[in-house]
Amino acid sequence: MATQQLGTIAVIGGTGAEGSGFALRWAGAGLDVVIGSRSNKKGETVAAELTDKLGGQGTIRGADNLGACEQADVVVLSVPYESQEGILASIQSGLPGKILVTLVAPLLGEKKGRYVPASGGSAALEAQAQVGDDVTVVAAFQNVGAHHLADFDHVIDCDVLICGGKRADRDIAITLAEAAGMRGVHAGVLQNAAIAEGLTALLISVNAAYKTRSAGIRITGI
Amino acid sequence: MATQQLGTIAVIGGTGAEGSGFALRWAGAGLDVVIGSRSNKKGETVAAELTDKLGGQGTIRGADNLGACEQADVVVLSVPYESQEGILASIQSGLPGKILVTLVAPLLGEKKGRYVPASGGSAALEAQAQVGDDVTVVAAFQNVGAHHLADFDHVIDCDVLICGGKRADRDIAITLAEAAGMRGVHAGVLQNAAIAEGLTALLISVNAAYKTRSAGIRITGI
Repeated sequence: MATQQLGTIAVIGGTGAEGSGFALRWAGAGLDVVIGSRSNKKGETVAAELTDKLGGQGTIRGADNLGACEQADVVVLSVPYESQEGILASIQSGLPGKILVTLVAPLLGEKKGRYVPASGGSAALEAQAQVGDDVTVVAAFQNVGAHHLADFDHVIDCDVLICGGKRADRDIAITLAEAAGMRGVHAGVLQNAAIAEGLTALLISVNAAYKTRSAGIRITGI
Repeated sequence: MATQQLGTIAVIGGTGAEGSGFALRWAGAGLDVVIGSRSNKKGETVAAELTDKLGGQGTIRGADNLGACEQADVVVLSVPYESQEGILASIQSGLPGKILVTLVAPLLGEKKGRYVPASGGSAALEAQAQVGDDVTVVAAFQNVGAHHLADFDHVIDCDVLICGGKRADRDIAITLAEAAGMRGVHAGVLQNAAIAEGLTALLISVNAAYKTRSAGIRITGI
């Protein structure tokens, strides 16, 4: 799938470290990107700052979350788990018929490296239950460290597990991964998102054991 | 840690495809290995067959599961999830003071590639609750395909996530991984075993999507 076929990408929570990092990489790869924030003003301000960083290699627009969502063909959710329910409710009217790519990983036990599953089994399954069947939720990018994203030239040594939807829906997330300089891997149904979310906690344990913050995963044998 | 320091390794369920594969690799690497089966006779018969396969590169003894456990310094559990509770009960008297390395991954939804967590959160946590605090459960090797093991020369392109116990306990499992030709990775507390177990289901989904049976994982950045 060519990146141009993706249309407009809205990054909900696009003023955060992770959302900004992806917005920069995607706009730098030629995608049409709008970032959303709680306030329209903050969205526009951060979008201008990010556009400056791109140094002529692309433009990022800003809006409030619902405004960004309404402009988009693909909606990317990059918010803390604690904010997920409220922010999804605020953009619900802009979602029907669209793909919602969620990056959310619940890290309730982060400090101790403990895996604490979301109450609905996974944050992605909770999101799908909330937004309804008119929206296709695809889970991706849970295991990518935000500190890797902002540096354009940094090669991210981590595959992106993509769970949910049909193959064509996952292909959209795979194209997004490739535009951000990573490999996306088809990883089955949305129920598998629980595992990808849990991996984030496990990688935090690995980081602690090896005194790094760069642990990631690669899928072999495919 | 040198392999000789491990002492005697008992492989409970060592007549199955996975248990036999590890027994062969460990005995071939110079470890003292005894395989256990439900019957002493089957254990001895399969042990003799495996010793033949080793072609003079090692010896494998056979016994019933409890007998194997009583001889061992390190006990490896390689049984189907459905059999775990009954077999643990049958070897309980031989376990106190020892390390129990469990390879068990519950694959309740295997055909559909669905992740169905064990009722206790993970098979490894269920095992720890059952055997009690006198036994240290370490989870490892859940993601290694049995078909990879029997062929000695086959390089297994998969890391081994090791969860549970203290660092010294995980070091024992890391030495076992290295003796089998793989890299072991410290992956935190036993609660993280749920994620490693779930990964097995996710890799089955990956296998289905890519029409292979060789999908594995590597940890990067450490």
